[in-house]
Amino acid sequence: IKRPLLAAESDVIFGGRGMTLEQTINDTNTYYRQQQRAVIYKKPTPIQIVKVDYPQRSKAVIREAYFRQASTTDYNGVYQGRYLDFEAKETTNKKSFPLKNFHEHQVKHFQNCLHQQGICFTIMRFASLERYFLTPATLLLKYWQQQTNGRKSIPLTEIIKTGYELQIGYQPLLDYLGAVDQLIQKTQQMD
Amino acid sequence: IKRPLLAAESDVIFGGRGMTLEQTINDTNTYYRQQQRAVIYKKPTPIQIVKVDYPQRSKAVIREAYFRQASTTDYNGVYQGRYLDFEAKETTNKKSFPLKNFHEHQVKHFQNCLHQQGICFTIMRFASLERYFLTPATLLLKYWQQQTNGRKSIPLTEIIKTGYELQIGYQPLLDYLGAVDQLIQKTQQMD
Ligand SMILES: [Mg+2]
Ligand SMILES: [Mg+2]
Repeated sequence: IKRPLLAAESDVIFGGRGMTLEQTINDTNTYYRQQQRAVIYKKPTPIQIVKVDYPQRSKAVIREAYFRQASTTDYNGVYQGRYLDFEAKETTNKKSFPLKNFHEHQVKHFQNCLHQQGICFTIMRFASLERYFLTPATLLLKYWQQQTNGRKSIPLTEIIKTGYELQIGYQPLLDYLGAVDQLIQKTQQMD
Repeated sequence: IKRPLLAAESDVIFGGRGMTLEQTINDTNTYYRQQQRAVIYKKPTPIQIVKVDYPQRSKAVIREAYFRQASTTDYNGVYQGRYLDFEAKETTNKKSFPLKNFHEHQVKHFQNCLHQQGICFTIMRFASLERYFLTPATLLLKYWQQQTNGRKSIPLTEIIKTGYELQIGYQPLLDYLGAVDQLIQKTQQMD
């Protein structure tokens, strides 16, 4: 969603209510770009194009195409010299975040980016609780690797302990760069 | 292009002949990922989807969609903690690279990424000369801003002086990370 926030819409938009997590993050990223705080975009959905018509005097029309599996995560970009890479996910669960919301290729992509010292995380929304967390990708990787042994979700208690809770606001709607600063600090301490 | 290089194809592929610049770079990026040297992808083309059919027992078919103008550059990713962002362009000119090959939004995106300390450049192919250069985005910006005063292209002599010539090889096809190392070094010296 590319339109700027209008003051008249603020009571609708405030609290992110009625918007998807993706819209909330996209609006936040637009704000960050306008304020020159970070340059982060959602990647377009990859499409396999099979047939295109070129009507005279008007623009090309795609007439047959298919959705392809994305090989990476939703978002990436640059912030103060750092490469950021993240995935946005929501659940209606109240006590844990299901691993089935993630795909093998996303987990693999996080591993590859972490190996290159990227800053990798997920933004998780617990819709029923209306709580948001920025969670280091390393926590996802830990539970992902253990899941053959049983547990198929990340407990909320663990997310609270390891992640950073985000607050819904007005401008930006979901200010997550403060949490990114904390994650970067923590990552540097572990180096 | 996702398929791996086959030895039997090497005489066809060698020298990048018969491949577009984009295919050559995509193959190089696949190799870099396999070798865990960098995680760089081409961004999918943004599409505006208007109509989707959901046939029974088969996958969704996009029946009407349009190409949208990309708001960023072709490629981005992470390399040794650095955010890389670049555009790939070719010309048949022999003495200069035309500025009309670039779009205002790409130039603006480079400015924004440079402001966040991203490593920004173009990979230029002079097709008639079969010469390749990694050119810092700052050179493009300089000529872009001056173009109202006359000159509408970047002289090859300037590209040779400011950029890094790349050699076509076998694996990877177009090894550009060495030039990236040099660009990073030069950027740090100027800080
Ligand atoms: Mg997502
Ligand atoms: Mg291009």
